[in-house]
Amino acid sequence: MKNRRIGVYLIGAKGSISATVMVGAMALRRGLAAPTGMITVTAPFDDLRLVDTGSLHFGGCDVRQGTVVEAAHRLANETGAVGWKLIEAVEEDLAGIEPDIEQGTVLNCGTAIEDLACRGGCETSLRDEVSRLRECLARFKSRKALDELIVVNLASTEPSFHLEPCHEDPAAFEECLDRNISGALRASTLYAYAAVREGCPYINFTPSAGALIPAIISLAEKEGVPVMGNDGKTGETLVKSALAPMFLCRNLEVLSWEGFNLLGNMDGCVLDHPENKQSKIRTKDQVLSRILGYAPHSRVHIHYVPSLDDQKTAWDFIHFKGFLDARMSLQFVWQGYDSLLAAPLVLDLVRLAELAARRGEKGLMPHLASYFKDPLGVSEYRLTEQYRMLMDYAMEVRKSLGANADT
Amino acid sequence: MKNRRIGVYLIGAKGSISATVMVGAMALRRGLAAPTGMITVTAPFDDLRLVDTGSLHFGGCDVRQGTVVEAAHRLANETGAVGWKLIEAVEEDLAGIEPDIEQGTVLNCGTAIEDLACRGGCETSLRDEVSRLRECLARFKSRKALDELIVVNLASTEPSFHLEPCHEDPAAFEECLDRNISGALRASTLYAYAAVREGCPYINFTPSAGALIPAIISLAEKEGVPVMGNDGKTGETLVKSALAPMFLCRNLEVLSWEGFNLLGNMDGCVLDHPENKQSKIRTKDQVLSRILGYAPHSRVHIHYVPSLDDQKTAWDFIHFKGFLDARMSLQFVWQGYDSLLAAPLVLDLVRLAELAARRGEKGLMPHLASYFKDPLGVSEYRLTEQYRMLMDYAMEVRKSLGANADT
Amino acid sequence: MKNRRIGVYLIGAKGSISATVMVGAMALRRGLAAPTGMITVTAPFDDLRLVDTGSLHFGGCDVRQGTVVEAAHRLANETGAVGWKLIEAVEEDLAGIEPDIEQGTVLNCGTAIEDLACRGGCETSLRDEVSRLRECLARFKSRKALDELIVVNLASTEPSFHLEPCHEDPAAFEECLDRNISGALRASTLYAYAAVREGCPYINFTPSAGALIPAIISLAEKEGVPVMGNDGKTGETLVKSALAPMFLCRNLEVLSWEGFNLLGNMDGCVLDHPENKQSKIRTKDQVLSRILGYAPHSRVHIHYVPSLDDQKTAWDFIHFKGFLDARMSLQFVWQGYDSLLAAPLVLDLVRLAELAARRGEKGLMPHLASYFKDPLGVSEYRLTEQYRMLMDYAMEVRKSLGANADT
Amino acid sequence: MKNRRIGVYLIGAKGSISATVMVGAMALRRGLAAPTGMITVTAPFDDLRLVDTGSLHFGGCDVRQGTVVEAAHRLANETGAVGWKLIEAVEEDLAGIEPDIEQGTVLNCGTAIEDLACRGGCETSLRDEVSRLRECLARFKSRKALDELIVVNLASTEPSFHLEPCHEDPAAFEECLDRNISGALRASTLYAYAAVREGCPYINFTPSAGALIPAIISLAEKEGVPVMGNDGKTGETLVKSALAPMFLCRNLEVLSWEGFNLLGNMDGCVLDHPENKQSKIRTKDQVLSRILGYAPHSRVHIHYVPSLDDQKTAWDFIHFKGFLDARMSLQFVWQGYDSLLAAPLVLDLVRLAELAARRGEKGLMPHLASYFKDPLGVSEYRLTEQYRMLMDYAMEVRKSLGANADT
Repeated sequence: MKNRRIGVYLIGAKGSISATVMVGAMALRRGLAAPTGMITVTAPFDDLRLVDTGSLHFGGCDVRQGTVVEAAHRLANETGAVGWKLIEAVEEDLAGIEPDIEQGTVLNCGTAIEDLACRGGCETSLRDEVSRLRECLARFKSRKALDELIVVNLASTEPSFHLEPCHEDPAAFEECLDRNISGALRASTLYAYAAVREGCPYINFTPSAGALIPAIISLAEKEGVPVMGNDGKTGETLVKSALAPMFLCRNLEVLSWEGFNLLGNMDGCVLDHPENKQSKIRTKDQVLSRILGYAPHSRVHIHYVPSLDDQKTAWDFIHFKGFLDARMSLQFVWQGYDSLLAAPLVLDLVRLAELAARRGEKGLMPHLASYFKDPLGVSEYRLTEQYRMLMDYAMEVRKSLGANADT
Repeated sequence: MKNRRIGVYLIGAKGSISATVMVGAMALRRGLAAPTGMITVTAPFDDLRLVDTGSLHFGGCDVRQGTVVEAAHRLANETGAVGWKLIEAVEEDLAGIEPDIEQGTVLNCGTAIEDLACRGGCETSLRDEVSRLRECLARFKSRKALDELIVVNLASTEPSFHLEPCHEDPAAFEECLDRNISGALRASTLYAYAAVREGCPYINFTPSAGALIPAIISLAEKEGVPVMGNDGKTGETLVKSALAPMFLCRNLEVLSWEGFNLLGNMDGCVLDHPENKQSKIRTKDQVLSRILGYAPHSRVHIHYVPSLDDQKTAWDFIHFKGFLDARMSLQFVWQGYDSLLAAPLVLDLVRLAELAARRGEKGLMPHLASYFKDPLGVSEYRLTEQYRMLMDYAMEVRKSLGANADT
Repeated sequence: MKNRRIGVYLIGAKGSISATVMVGAMALRRGLAAPTGMITVTAPFDDLRLVDTGSLHFGGCDVRQGTVVEAAHRLANETGAVGWKLIEAVEEDLAGIEPDIEQGTVLNCGTAIEDLACRGGCETSLRDEVSRLRECLARFKSRKALDELIVVNLASTEPSFHLEPCHEDPAAFEECLDRNISGALRASTLYAYAAVREGCPYINFTPSAGALIPAIISLAEKEGVPVMGNDGKTGETLVKSALAPMFLCRNLEVLSWEGFNLLGNMDGCVLDHPENKQSKIRTKDQVLSRILGYAPHSRVHIHYVPSLDDQKTAWDFIHFKGFLDARMSLQFVWQGYDSLLAAPLVLDLVRLAELAARRGEKGLMPHLASYFKDPLGVSEYRLTEQYRMLMDYAMEVRKSLGANADT
Repeated sequence: MKNRRIGVYLIGAKGSISATVMVGAMALRRGLAAPTGMITVTAPFDDLRLVDTGSLHFGGCDVRQGTVVEAAHRLANETGAVGWKLIEAVEEDLAGIEPDIEQGTVLNCGTAIEDLACRGGCETSLRDEVSRLRECLARFKSRKALDELIVVNLASTEPSFHLEPCHEDPAAFEECLDRNISGALRASTLYAYAAVREGCPYINFTPSAGALIPAIISLAEKEGVPVMGNDGKTGETLVKSALAPMFLCRNLEVLSWEGFNLLGNMDGCVLDHPENKQSKIRTKDQVLSRILGYAPHSRVHIHYVPSLDDQKTAWDFIHFKGFLDARMSLQFVWQGYDSLLAAPLVLDLVRLAELAARRGEKGLMPHLASYFKDPLGVSEYRLTEQYRMLMDYAMEVRKSLGANADT
């Protein structure tokens, strides 16, 4: 395994999360930072012969102007979360990635995102665009002589998306591509399709529901490709999935759970568009009723507050009823750097997707549920139970590795 | 089972929690309130043939002046958490309990508590006092023709307590009683000893560490009596035990966890005495390092704020380190009525202790860990894991009941 | 003065604030409560020979079904802020007011409010409706033999309102009434007009901008009637007007000020309708830029959370820039009973409006600016400066009273 | 005036605040930062011909090892509040100040501070130490050819201090020095005495009450030297002095006001010593009762939380009573960089002290009350009223400058 060369293809490579992922991997390689926030460096994962984070080869695409180095500078200057000295230390490494960042696709991802793109619209046919994306992946893989390429969607949230018949079945979906019905799919759909067709494990870290539609999940199963999503669970929802079970464990009745998320980065700017916000709120909102088994009065709000940059601030107000109908409350304030919370999860997911591919797993990876707000194919939303699923998986893999080692 | 007559003997019967327990049971009996906050009314406990809450017979003791009805009035007037109309509806029932509230014992429980007591100190010998307490229990049991009497310690927190050789071994402990070495034990020790000797299951809902010392736990095992403690987990620590595992699940490093508890009831007043506060802080403080596996900078503070009465307000500030050493924070504010959070747990514990006694369990009941800040004999401090222990127990009991039903 | 009989005519008499105003006045009369929250009981107001709160005669109108006693019961039952015993003690007094509560008018006040009204729409002409309202006031005044009748608008917030030419000039406004152009005005306009025409001082405690339009203010000046508004400053905006000047006093730059108001009473329900919410947000929102002299990123949000009833909970997040561009923050959480914060202000305003009328003041009363979110005719929004305006007025009145006493 | 050369002598020159003051002045000189947080750059102060911040000459003393440049590096590395690039840009300027930082005195300033000092105790006599300090000031003044030297005390808080007869009267104080009664005074006393004797305006930015004792204030009046203190009002107390008047303006009764300050810098470390903490708490605590006119239940707590470094986090819980005895609450959370809040105030005070000296003012400067938690000789504690005092002073100076300009 030591000689396997592993690549990571980041969709949205010039965004804050991507920049943090790459800066982090470089910093780990050079021993300049600790892998705090990554679960795969703790037991029992450290026994699973996972790919070394520092050895990953990065490439990707984006629809924005600018460079990866500029994105890294923004991390230090605007956010203040990453020290300037660290950025300087890895700047040369980052510059080396630049040639591997290509032009992304913009297709039905909402005016908010389209406004970010430099070139004017999408005149090419769906089939042509898919071919281009597949070539991008294949070229990168061959250029770097990669044994495996993991594709991670870190692009901005697309507008919400409704499943139609042509999304259900692989054959229907192919026909939709042939007939060039572009209104039926999103940019994220094309990326996911291209990845799976190229045999690349695919992680949808965004809430964009157009990516892992049933037709593509079926295809992944058929092609033997592991995939997982949706929407990385980094902040308010993470806390929610840890706290909500407490009310169950005490039979306290949640009356209202109101969540307010303030953020000021590109993600926040895109989410300020009602059509894009809707996707996000949907994946955040269902967590509560799935855990509690009933639906209290609950709304999740996202507001764009530019001065906060990447430092998300969330206030949740939870009103609950206890014994003799007494009303009580719990509030929390979460203040975290969105990108720094997301990046270690992405690195974990890359390492675990590589493991899954190596082991011949295919289709959804339900053991990764704890990483996602809306874990596909999983009905368990409680954080600690999801974590236990991951631990059980790791123990099993360790056991099988031990068995293999014996033979 | 339906005909088993079950009693509850409350130590500290004139306090807020006791008043709420009794008002609650009466209200449930009359159908005036829902059992929100009690786990034993949910599945699978509702299949376990637990004693009906409304049928419990209450008695107890206290060192304070005043009546149970007055304590109930305080709940409505000062706290505002319980409606006046509800108190009025059960006032007559409460008055009926009055004759069954006896004089408690005050012995080495700290000047804060001794100041509350009406009579002057403890001139009697330990053996005499133990005899008196045993007679109290036996008399109440016989007067009400009870099949089982559960003793619950709800008295004020005693000063902290250090284990000495005479607390370890039943024989050494008996000798300590014979020799009347009063300095070696606390009031709570005598109550626990008397209960176990009388065959009464004993629940230590307070942090007072003098109650369930090793010698008494050994005695309980020998006598076939189930016991459990310490310190009901009602508020800030409950949240802590739900939230701390989140940092583990994400490999985020907790740097500091500072907790501030403001409360204004009798409990708060007693805890304002440094010697009594120490006991409480000890049971609250260890939860964190037990869950995390390391000890971050952490202090738990308790402050007496009279205007809050029973409405505890806690602020916890959690500072943590994430990827690339970024510092982030989580704060929470908990606002709950202490007595209304505690009372349903007490009723749950009474029902489950009765079940354990009926099933012939003896000694510690580790499956009740989720109810306590410092669960004796249990190293698991994570709320959801403790809850799972309780569920596993319940499923097992249900299975055995089903088996019995078949035969 | 002692013999002057003063009445208070409450528009929205069955709402929470009105109920609290009346319960409070009765409780003060009977010595059952302290006048905490009223400024007019402190020096130097206690020297101004203001009307005794306990002697006020209450009447009013509403469009809702139900009784004043029921509204008072809701205060005790749902809100929990007012003790049941207090309500019982004044219940008979309240019942005595019932015959003096008449049918209000519903006219262009938005579907949210119209849905509350029992009768179907407004078929009558504007002139007829004005006549009816004037008769209501006159009849009440004569029935109670009142020397003065103060009208206070406590009705639900109407949709936002745009000034048109016919609102500017009294003559144009009369013509609008004659021509029955109902689309040009709101229910609150008719009430205000009727009050001024009847010579009754008028207080607009709501944000409804249709009430004190320029034409009506001019009329008030001409008719010698004192009037004031808009929108009682009870909660989040009160804190804002106290805190915002701090940033000025330190030359700290407010970057963002985001305010979130959760409330669950009728007011909250009406404000959940976008058209009505707009009025409220407008009066709340301008406070900040008026104080700071620049407009930071700032949005005020109002959300309906039914379980909170009358207990408003507001979270404000203030992000600011200090020396060397450092970003810092201040957050506050305000938890108050809306009606209990408003009622003492209403009683203050009634007493001060009566004083103004007695002294022959007419038109706007700018010295009452501290009571309002959007004080008409005043450019000072800082709380302490507004308070100083009120104190200066009081000192001046006291001086003139002293002078009169001499002669 | 343009040619006047002004120096600033910082006691505690290697601390965070001093480092920020010097970095800030250098950054302003080079146009690298805006003077946000300084009032003296706003109208009408910009008309008062104040000394240019960029032209100030810095020197000072400290008892710690290390250099000013290292202190500046700490600002960037540990605190993260000041960007690394800014520090780099002024590093050379800072290094130039190094030779002007001398050894400070340690005398009765508590073990916490004495532990910081490198040399062993204070064997010299008081008179010798005073002479040494005066020579330091004189030498710096002559070396830099200064027209005026402002001394600012930014050293760590000393233990609390009780006024004795020898502190009241200048003659008694001189005798105390002659007789070498070192137990009667603190290091801060010697500094203040030396400064006044050398004709240097003296600002006590710390809570150390030993500095501006009556004898030294009298001496300052006699010698024609302006002085002011105590304890810069930067954070929680600033908010308190802005918010507390709100309760007065509404006649709401504050029941409890509990403040919790978490901080992790050197100041926090020193304040963790009970004897030093006492001084701080005293100056913070009285603000409330001075503003309200009564003393609610109120305690101010300071806790050392190392991970926070310079980022102070304070939570205040305010419980208050409104109409009909309803209990409500206001909480705030203040998160600010202590040094960045303090530094602009220090620069303001230096500029205003220079102005006062130039105008021939002497003794206390009550118009500077808004800068201090415990403004000497001032009974006004409300922020906006204190601010008005400063504005009135500025207007008067501007008027007199205009008058002078005419002649």
